[in-house]
Amino acid sequence: MITPKRPSGFNEFLPKDQMAFNAMMSVIKLVYEQHGYAPIETPALELAEVLLAKEGGESAKQSYRFTKGDTDLAMRFDLTVPLARYVAEHYHELSFPFRRYQMQEVWRGEKAQAGRYRQFYQCDIDIIGSNSLLAEADILLTSNDVIKELGLKDAIIKISHRGVLNAWLESKKLKHLNTEVLRSVDKLEKQGDKKVTEELLKIGINKNDIQQILELVKISGKADEVIKKLSLVKIDNEEFKKALNDIKELDTYLKAAGLNNKNYIFDLKIIRGLDYYTGIVFETVLTKNPELGSICGGGRYDNLVGFYHKEKLSGIGASIGLSRLFNAIKDRINNDQSTPAQVLIMPLDKSVVPYCLEVAKKINQAKLNVFVYPGLDKMSKQLNYANKIKIPLVALIGENELKKKIITIKNMKTGKQSSTSLAKAAATIRKML
Amino acid sequence: MITPKRPSGFNEFLPKDQMAFNAMMSVIKLVYEQHGYAPIETPALELAEVLLAKEGGESAKQSYRFTKGDTDLAMRFDLTVPLARYVAEHYHELSFPFRRYQMQEVWRGEKAQAGRYRQFYQCDIDIIGSNSLLAEADILLTSNDVIKELGLKDAIIKISHRGVLNAWLESKKLKHLNTEVLRSVDKLEKQGDKKVTEELLKIGINKNDIQQILELVKISGKADEVIKKLSLVKIDNEEFKKALNDIKELDTYLKAAGLNNKNYIFDLKIIRGLDYYTGIVFETVLTKNPELGSICGGGRYDNLVGFYHKEKLSGIGASIGLSRLFNAIKDRINNDQSTPAQVLIMPLDKSVVPYCLEVAKKINQAKLNVFVYPGLDKMSKQLNYANKIKIPLVALIGENELKKKIITIKNMKTGKQSSTSLAKAAATIRKML
Repeated sequence: MITPKRPSGFNEFLPKDQMAFNAMMSVIKLVYEQHGYAPIETPALELAEVLLAKEGGESAKQSYRFTKGDTDLAMRFDLTVPLARYVAEHYHELSFPFRRYQMQEVWRGEKAQAGRYRQFYQCDIDIIGSNSLLAEADILLTSNDVIKELGLKDAIIKISHRGVLNAWLESKKLKHLNTEVLRSVDKLEKQGDKKVTEELLKIGINKNDIQQILELVKISGKADEVIKKLSLVKIDNEEFKKALNDIKELDTYLKAAGLNNKNYIFDLKIIRGLDYYTGIVFETVLTKNPELGSICGGGRYDNLVGFYHKEKLSGIGASIGLSRLFNAIKDRINNDQSTPAQVLIMPLDKSVVPYCLEVAKKINQAKLNVFVYPGLDKMSKQLNYANKIKIPLVALIGENELKKKIITIKNMKTGKQSSTSLAKAAATIRKML
Repeated sequence: MITPKRPSGFNEFLPKDQMAFNAMMSVIKLVYEQHGYAPIETPALELAEVLLAKEGGESAKQSYRFTKGDTDLAMRFDLTVPLARYVAEHYHELSFPFRRYQMQEVWRGEKAQAGRYRQFYQCDIDIIGSNSLLAEADILLTSNDVIKELGLKDAIIKISHRGVLNAWLESKKLKHLNTEVLRSVDKLEKQGDKKVTEELLKIGINKNDIQQILELVKISGKADEVIKKLSLVKIDNEEFKKALNDIKELDTYLKAAGLNNKNYIFDLKIIRGLDYYTGIVFETVLTKNPELGSICGGGRYDNLVGFYHKEKLSGIGASIGLSRLFNAIKDRINNDQSTPAQVLIMPLDKSVVPYCLEVAKKINQAKLNVFVYPGLDKMSKQLNYANKIKIPLVALIGENELKKKIITIKNMKTGKQSSTSLAKAAATIRKML
């Protein structure tokens, strides 16, 4: 006998939690489709040379890579790089701006630790081939609707613009230090001023400039407040002007669509890692679960598709790390049942089995979820099973029920019982649910 | 620039086909839940020693196996072995009979050839922990409902019983040749009598016995016909009696649930490969697509969970190979659109963008799928896009619409246009869809 176990870092659910998880997935899918994003899926395995074309990402380093025959393969570690490959490969068959959603698992061989999985779901939306701020607005509005439909009332979207810090570095002729500065500032919230100052000193930025950087990235609030504060910063280049305009325009669009500053603020501390972003970036946090960090984040990336295609296609996207989010908020979801069924039909004698099947068919045809207990176990055992899977109703069927062509329905919570004719069974069940 | 391509044998869809595929998945999921199967998912990667515990299966040999750090991993090649592991691992947290459905991808590194994929979806249902023929009936009724809901009117389920041939071999003291005989008979339909006879001769079965085997496995038809023919075969052991009883009982149950012999027949040629089956087995074929072979098959397996657990738990299941089925029948599915959206809102001027967002929100709130074209491209370009993604309606919004707080809706098929107030927009759209 072999001990049944999984590789560490690989989670799976019992039915009760899987049902709650699937319900979340359905909500997200529905919102994505209501906003006109079309579904795609990409293979779990990609050619390593294609998937890992862009060097340097942490996630890429953690990918599961192996050889099968002569083929160097890697499992996808996010949904964005496969999207870039997909768009380039199917360029002539797609219509741009291309809007797609994708809800699939990704794999990262990172250190297993609490709340970190090596396999988890990402739910992504992206718009490829639009330079308009309407695309940013669309992604943010859709994300906000997802948050709302998931009932996450404590969520707030923090929006930033990579262009602000870029423009400042440009004005100081420090643009070559861009990556190092971003990496340090990204740690500000977790590690504080002192640590970030030390790091920036080490890479050769002087104290006065560090002071300015810290002041700059600590700007946050409503759009007009942020713009006012930024206007006081003396940066005179195109990138800065564009960033200010973007913030203003995006704010107008979000407000026009009914959002307000309970839903979002601007916060220039948001860097969103080192990856491919070039413009607006954002992260969503739950004020009741700050330990989660960002539950939904994204931004604009101008260069990604270019790894695989001669046309430059700007993209913007958002990604929800659903597996982690689910684990944090599953207590907020109200699901007791370990079965999608509403009624369990209990055959109490071999002679009634065909009648049970007839009853099940009748109830099924009324679009109710039902099944017949597959066996002739004692009533107490069948009831015990019903109790354990938390099914709301059972239909007891013995010789008496068969003879009279009725069913006896019992509410498993209240214990209340009532008999009904087969013809009225579905209606009675609906009333009792 | 890197050429964007996938490893061979790995398929992906354009949005139009992905939408049709997802629609099929939704139908199957709905039917499974209506029959009270609970969802689970298992990780893509399992420990190789656990997943490949049972030697000999073709599919296992084709698994993607590799080492990461010190861990020997393998990607799942079906959903049944992971289920056995799952049931054993979570034994004390599950309620039996355990009914689950699982719709996930599996990976097999087989030779790439037309219609064969190295990654494909399986949609499985299983009942673990019931010895009753009610479980067989449940699996078959659910499979039949899936077929019906997918609109596959030319499907027929062919049911067989492993016990018949087993009992015959037992009676002839040939049970040690069981595997070889099954392997040969499995090829009967494709390779014919002559080839099978040669093979059986080679493994040492005499001509007279081969004749009997061929007569036995060629028995097919309605239950009473099959039982009548089998009664003439002189086999006097318990296994044979049980097989006959099983066929009779299952037939009674299927008829009680409203099935008839247009839905299913018994056909003793059905072997269902060499895998773990021990009792009733079945395969479903489409008479209009015989080249597909079995689109949904399964059966009872008594020993699988026992690889991982001390309790013996009998199981029965059915599996749909959805990716192949989809490719064969996608022409039967009526989907033109490359977007789930019903309305595209077209901003014809920068000044109308906020109004467009307001309109989109209003329409979205009425649970219609809508998005704003993310950019201010010329009307002809926007209309061309609408045409290409085959969206049914567009809402043209220019200065006039903004001023009057109306929208102008155009049906992209008929070209018909009509204007409506913002308040009546959703109702008008519903009428035009």
